[in-house]
This record gives sequence, C-alpha cells and structure tokens, in this order.
Amino acid sequence: MSFEFEIVAEDGNARAGWLHTPHGTIPTPIYCPVGTQASVKMIPPRDLHEMQASLILANTYHLHLRPGSDLIRELGGLHQFMVWDQPILTDSGGFQVFSLAQINKIDDDGVTFRSHIDGSKHRLTPEISMQIQENLGADIIMCFDQCPTPTDRAVVELAVRRTHEWARRCRQAHPDDSTQALFGIVQGGVFPDLREQSALFLQTLDFPGYAIGGLAVGETKTAMYETIDVTTPFLPRNKPRYLMGVGDPDDLVEAVMRGMDIFDCVMPTRVARHGAALTLDGRINMRNAEHSRDQRPVDPGCLCYCCQNFTRAYIRHLLKAEELLGLYLLSYHNVHFLIKHMEAIREAILQGRLREYGQRFLTRYLRRPL
Amino acid sequence: MSFEFEIVAEDGNARAGWLHTPHGTIPTPIYCPVGTQASVKMIPPRDLHEMQASLILANTYHLHLRPGSDLIRELGGLHQFMVWDQPILTDSGGFQVFSLAQINKIDDDGVTFRSHIDGSKHRLTPEISMQIQENLGADIIMCFDQCPTPTDRAVVELAVRRTHEWARRCRQAHPDDSTQALFGIVQGGVFPDLREQSALFLQTLDFPGYAIGGLAVGETKTAMYETIDVTTPFLPRNKPRYLMGVGDPDDLVEAVMRGMDIFDCVMPTRVARHGAALTLDGRINMRNAEHSRDQRPVDPGCLCYCCQNFTRAYIRHLLKAEELLGLYLLSYHNVHFLIKHMEAIREAILQGRLREYGQRFLTRYLRRPL
Repeated sequence: MSFEFEIVAEDGNARAGWLHTPHGTIPTPIYCPVGTQASVKMIPPRDLHEMQASLILANTYHLHLRPGSDLIRELGGLHQFMVWDQPILTDSGGFQVFSLAQINKIDDDGVTFRSHIDGSKHRLTPEISMQIQENLGADIIMCFDQCPTPTDRAVVELAVRRTHEWARRCRQAHPDDSTQALFGIVQGGVFPDLREQSALFLQTLDFPGYAIGGLAVGETKTAMYETIDVTTPFLPRNKPRYLMGVGDPDDLVEAVMRGMDIFDCVMPTRVARHGAALTLDGRINMRNAEHSRDQRPVDPGCLCYCCQNFTRAYIRHLLKAEELLGLYLLSYHNVHFLIKHMEAIREAILQGRLREYGQRFLTRYLRRPL
Repeated sequence: MSFEFEIVAEDGNARAGWLHTPHGTIPTPIYCPVGTQASVKMIPPRDLHEMQASLILANTYHLHLRPGSDLIRELGGLHQFMVWDQPILTDSGGFQVFSLAQINKIDDDGVTFRSHIDGSKHRLTPEISMQIQENLGADIIMCFDQCPTPTDRAVVELAVRRTHEWARRCRQAHPDDSTQALFGIVQGGVFPDLREQSALFLQTLDFPGYAIGGLAVGETKTAMYETIDVTTPFLPRNKPRYLMGVGDPDDLVEAVMRGMDIFDCVMPTRVARHGAALTLDGRINMRNAEHSRDQRPVDPGCLCYCCQNFTRAYIRHLLKAEELLGLYLLSYHNVHFLIKHMEAIREAILQGRLREYGQRFLTRYLRRPL
C-alpha cells in the first residue's frame, strides 16, 4: 500500500516512524515547511533538498484563487509546477476561508466567500475542496472542515457537527487513498468531550491519517497541550497524527512527547522576514545593534549555509540596508533549524531518551531556571 | 606584479586577456555583477560562484554611509564581510554623490552632501575616498571623480579639470598598486577633444588601468559608441579599460568591439525585480498573461538553475503572487545571462570571429531585419 505507516520506535507516547507515499518516504516525526502559494517563501527547492526537507505543505485556498487548480493540473500537477519531487500535503482551504477571506455565507453545504486578493466571489464545499486537491495532486490531502474560535462551546459544537458531515462528504468524494491519502481533521476546540467525540466519529470513516485542527489559534499553550493529551488516546495508534499549524520549537517537543507525528508552520519564514533567527537559546533579533560587530554566525553550532558562511554583523547589515539576501539567509537558517530540531527529536526517540532530550532542550530554549 | 594584464588575443580592436589580482585572475572582457551594499541583490555568493562570476563591484558611497568602512575594515575587509573570495572592485563614491545624495557644496577640494538614507551630513574628497576604499580593501579601486551631465560643454570642462586634479590627489594618497590597483577615470562627456585631453593627462599619473566614466547617463547609444571610439586611441593598449555602468547586452558587444575590457551594470538584477528576463531575443516581460500556461523555461537555450528547472508558467505565477522566489530566479537568470554572454564574446575573440558573432547577436537581440 502506498501510504503504509511504520512505527519503528516508541518512547513514552512518542513514536518514530516512516510514512510511505508515492513521492517518497517521510521520516516521522516531521516538520513540514509551508509553501503557501507553491513556494516556501524565498527558498528555492534545491535548498530545501539540501536541508533534507521531506514533506512540503501548500495551501488549497491560495492556489485555488491564484493561479487556479485547473491550470496546475494542466501543467502536470503541483509537484511538477513547483519542482518538488518529494511528498506534498495540501490543506483543505477551510482554515484560510475562515481566517483570510471575507465570508458571505456559511451553511451546512459549504462556504461562500470573497477572495482577499480581488474581492471575487467563490464557493468551497467538501466536494469542491476534494476536486481542487485532486487537481493539485498532493500526496496527502485534507478534509474540508470548519475551524472555529476554540473557546466558545456553542460555536465549537456547531463546527464539530459540520466538520463531521463535511468529512463524510469528503470521504464519499474521495473514497480511494491509493494515490492521494485523505486525512480527517478532529475539531472540538478546548473541550475534551467534543475532541473525543470527533476523534471517534472520524474513525468510522477509516482515514489513513488524522489531524488535530483548530489549535494554535489563540488558546494558551497549556490548553493546546491538554487538548492533545485528551485527544490522542482516541486516535488509532497505527495511523499518522498531524498537528496542524504548530511549529514553535518548544511546541514540537511537547507535541511529539504527546504522540503527534506531523507538523507545519509558517513561523520560521515569517519571523525571518521580521529579522529574527531561531536558535537553541531562543529567538534572536538580528537587527539589534549588539550584532553590528559580531563575527560569530547566527547560531555557532549550526551547519547550515547561512551559519557556515556569514557573520551576524553581515546579516545585521543586510537587514538594516533592506537587502533581501538577509531575509533569505535567515529564512534558510530558520527552516533548517526546525528540520534539524525535528531530526534530533526523532533520533532521541530512536535512542529511548526523548524525555531527557526534551527537558534539556526546553530548559535552554525557554531559558527556564535550572 | 600582482595586477599584470596579459592580452592573449586580439580581434579588430577587441582584446581577450587575463587580469591578475591578489584574489585571483579575471578573464577579460568581463561583466561584473554589482553588489551595491555588499550584496548582489538577492543572489548568495555560492550562486555567483556557480555561474562563474569573477569580479564583483561594490559601492563606496553606500558602504561608507552604511555600515561604514571602518567597521568593514575591523571585520576583516569587504571580501571577508560579504564572503566573496574572488576579485572585488569599488567605485569612488563620485557617481553616487552626484546622482543620489543631496549636494550641499562642490568645491575644488571635494563634495559636502547629505545622505539619501537619513539626511546626515558627510564629506568626500579624493583623500577620503582613498581612505574608505583602502578600508574596504577591494582589489581594484577608483579615483574620485566628478561625473557631469555629458552634453553641457562648460559643465563638462569644469568637471574634467576637477577630475584631473582629484586624480592627481588620489594618486598621491594611493601611490602603491601592489595590493590595490588604482584606476583613473577619463571624463569629457561627448566631446572628443576633452576625452583625448583627459585620457592623455591621466596617463601622466601612470595608473594600472583606465576607466571611461560619465557615459550611460542619458546620452544616445550612438553618442556612447562614438565617445568610446574617440577615447580608446588615447588609452594605453597594455592596460585594462573599464566602461563604467554599462551592461546592456548590445552595448557589451559594441564596446568590446571598440576595445573595452571591464563592465558593470545593475540592469540585470533591476529589471529582474520588475519581472523582466534577458534572452537572446531581447527582454521578456514574464508577468504577461501569454506565459501563464507556458511550460518552456524562460530561455530554452539557457543552462542556468532557473531555466533548467522552472517553467515560465511557474515564474509568472510567482511574480503575480508576489513571491520573492520569482524575483530571485529572474535575478539569477539575468546575471547568468550577462556572464555567459560575455564568455561567448571572449570565446569569439579567441577564435577571431567577433565581428561575425557580434553581428549575429545584435541582429537577433535587437530584432533587426536581416
């Protein structure tokens, strides 16, 4: 089977595995760089290969609006279009419809909205989302869901009901996982009973993977971790588990320890464009004057192209001078940092020492008193 | 001698040679990418190596204002700062002072001006320009000159007189070319007698190379070519000749045929940032709708990273979606195009068929009727 998921080691609730796809095998746990508009911002694909990226995410909402999924299908699909021959995951468009677009109407059938680009009117339904994602041709595709504010129970209950009905329709529209694996998305906000109910319902549709959605949208980190804790016991052990939109280095450690396998987040490239570098000692604002004469690399222990070649002084100069090369170098470093961070986490699981590794990492990264 | 210039072939007035510098040997004729603020815009140094760039230009005016040449000297010099271990050329700051800054006062001693960045007041004189360029540590440095509108005779005459006096002072401040070669700059606008006078005067100062300045600033191409024609007979044959700020593909052919050796121009990266690609058939606006379904590379005959991997359709999408990767890929292609264009010109000189090569190129590039 194309999408076999092999767990090769467990350490507490954490798992290390291989997820096989038609475009190659993904080591899990995995951090997945985000190529919103069919480009991981500023980073050419050969750089992503160099830093051993595996799975890349692209956004259905954005690509549907521009350049259109019919065009991408006509041009050979998303892999060929964006020149990424390894696995790709597309989201369903749900999250962006609710966060970016101007909504005209949500009903039980779907959502009518206006494009954030040109105000043009569009409609997404479970069936349309499946059609778009089939046009794009990603290896892993996602059910169209409603992603609500996670703390308002009445709103969340309605969203869960819709998400389940939409998941059923997505499954019906995409019953065969042999070339594209359709993952279900558990909703339920911060309410344990709704998460349990959602996790159990989705399994009746027999998805090859399950995501936890609706987190990292404003709730506390504690609430996020607790929600993972109450959800994973109701997810099947032998299927990959995807925590959507989460990628802070500390969250990756906490969530892997809680049994999650796949992660995506725009944070590394977004903070790079604001001049911040991720390091084991937390984020560094590379625009600060303290770096102006600093001959050290951004992260002295890092083996990436940026850190092996350039000084903090040079990168600060590039940022101050508004040279895009500075944003590129920080984007490269930050994505590389998360990929290598996750490789280290996976290695710790394989060696059965994730708890020790995680505690040491969190103490340093969060600058907790020892 | 560090800066020996060997002419290995001549074809009409054109010459192919080697210019030896402390950071390596430059094949001539050479197109030199411009790293205004110590970065060739968007292109990391390893990409410049890959496309076999040799000499890189950086701007004294910009680096003096930000981050300051003292800082760059303290950090090991410009080669180390911008991670370019091959030859670098710095201009004198003259051109930018006259084109970018708000001038407060030009006198025979120098120029007082306000920074275009923050309005702060600065002064450049021949001696200060030499000091800054010695701090930066480029292999080839330039005399501080006054670059006037080339068509107003009275203005040009005064500028020539100042340029000569300033060249004399630069020579006095930098008498030794063993680690940094100081080139003189011929001024004289479009006036043949002034160009002759300037070329002859500068030779009394025995520079290891000579530039023609004050062109490509608004005069016609015919006037530019004629000015080269009337100047080169008065330049020594055995010294490199640098045509400042010129880099249109057709101008490179015309100027090499007239005996020029070194060229710099921001055009390739600038037009890339406006979405244009250089090809043998002229410039292509990659934003045009006609490219939206085009599976061909930007330039089907091109061997660069952009053209070997990406379609016009993808690049157009990136430009429309305002993804910086699109500007990077076009910048890469355009700089690569000019470097390879000049390699082909050099090869034609070595084979003694530059006239034929040049005519064929110009016919195609300028879409002249056959």
